[in-house]
Amino acid sequence: MTSNAETKVHLVGAGPGDPELLTLKAHALLRAADLVLHDDLVPPAIIALASPQAIVVNVGKRCGVKKITQLEINRMMIASARRGMKVVRLKSGDPGIFGRLAEELDALEAARIPFEVVPGITAAAAAAASVGVSLTDRRKSSRLIIVSGHQARENEHAEKPDWKALAREDATLAIYMPGRDLAPLAADILAAGLAPSTPVVLVSRSATPAERHWCATLAELPGAPRLDSPSILLLGRALDGAEKRAHANSSASASAREEDWQSLLRMIGVDDEQPAPSPNENPERRFVL
Amino acid sequence: MTSNAETKVHLVGAGPGDPELLTLKAHALLRAADLVLHDDLVPPAIIALASPQAIVVNVGKRCGVKKITQLEINRMMIASARRGMKVVRLKSGDPGIFGRLAEELDALEAARIPFEVVPGITAAAAAAASVGVSLTDRRKSSRLIIVSGHQARENEHAEKPDWKALAREDATLAIYMPGRDLAPLAADILAAGLAPSTPVVLVSRSATPAERHWCATLAELPGAPRLDSPSILLLGRALDGAEKRAHANSSASASAREEDWQSLLRMIGVDDEQPAPSPNENPERRFVL
Repeated sequence: MTSNAETKVHLVGAGPGDPELLTLKAHALLRAADLVLHDDLVPPAIIALASPQAIVVNVGKRCGVKKITQLEINRMMIASARRGMKVVRLKSGDPGIFGRLAEELDALEAARIPFEVVPGITAAAAAAASVGVSLTDRRKSSRLIIVSGHQARENEHAEKPDWKALAREDATLAIYMPGRDLAPLAADILAAGLAPSTPVVLVSRSATPAERHWCATLAELPGAPRLDSPSILLLGRALDGAEKRAHANSSASASAREEDWQSLLRMIGVDDEQPAPSPNENPERRFVL
Repeated sequence: MTSNAETKVHLVGAGPGDPELLTLKAHALLRAADLVLHDDLVPPAIIALASPQAIVVNVGKRCGVKKITQLEINRMMIASARRGMKVVRLKSGDPGIFGRLAEELDALEAARIPFEVVPGITAAAAAAASVGVSLTDRRKSSRLIIVSGHQARENEHAEKPDWKALAREDATLAIYMPGRDLAPLAADILAAGLAPSTPVVLVSRSATPAERHWCATLAELPGAPRLDSPSILLLGRALDGAEKRAHANSSASASAREEDWQSLLRMIGVDDEQPAPSPNENPERRFVL
């Protein structure tokens, strides 16, 4: 067993989906890796940045024939690091925010494998940026509360978030993995006392060519379109300008984003495995509005 | 007045301080900018990435002779964009989290200047990564609450955060700009009912060669060292492993980080205006522990 700097395992945030939103560090580590273990949500355009010599494994929940367990992921990281391989464990968004990072760090620590966590752009920041709003606003919102809808549903013993404590007029809520049926969530948050006119923004597949978003109010949330996962729901008065800005920027930025993406893929010599439909083929491609 | 894609103002997150934690997009925009308006907290090694032809203005609160007002910043962005200049408004961390982004977006919108927000790594994610912990943990913390200590102090009319609602055992708190005297904050949070044994991590100048951190418990918080700003305080059971991990990684990673930083600066052909002291000159350079 070796344990020098060469065998350090890097647990790396891939950001929200756009390869341009990788950090310089994540990009360099990905290119140099011998083994990349990635979540299912990391898009092909990012995976493609790995060296052609690298072994790339999708250890995500929805991968192919067999579900790879957390224990198997831990064993792969440890065994490969011990053989001197440069291991990158690539997680979508920021690895420390709903990324199941803690279990993997505990396993590496128990095996005395050195590790380093490389932060990434988290979904809330990317979603707010894409609709041109701030998550906090001195005049409207003094805090940001990040919760997971999935976690509450997954674990029967987990208590529901205490919406009465969290859903206040001067807070912005970012609900990760809110699920497809938003009616129960809307009912809970309305019952907690938040105004029906509170702005909401639902963003699906943020920072990819397939991004779609929907801007409305809390009262309208039960009628939200059922968008593809991953999605994120933002809620709060700081999002006031989102609807107008999404409209104002839509015609220009939808095509600009498509061009940016394609030119980036060409630059790095990669074809996206899932070519984005042209705006003509799917007029709803980016904007639900 | 022109308003085509060429004159779009980019409001860009510079991340926590390490140039390697810039996104590829931020890096490209910074290199191509004609005008860079940056906050005081963005370090020289990042500013140095701008083109030598770019005009670079520190519009931060602590800059030189004269405090540049928000109105003046807005006017600079608008006038420069109208002249066809590529303007990058560079903010530390993520621009949408305590970055006073909303005021600037409102001004650009009112002037009908197209803009784009480019998200960045926020301080909480960087601080947790640097001590090797996750901000959420399925077993311990189901949410992340981001609040600003500075905002509460700055605005007398702003209510103090309702710590009783926020400081719960199953939440992680990230307090941006907590101030230098942490005793009043510790008293408030203890009074809200959080256990005195709750882990706390104070990180100063995260992701720079001058980074220092201090891992302790809520009970010990009033005795925290007075570290340089910017600093961030993390609090919660998800941070359990921080103290042990910071110790385990300290000897290796302090020097590794210094080398990384120096080699990056050489690679980009830049000398940091504020050379980091060698570990011998200042043994407390990175680790307070």
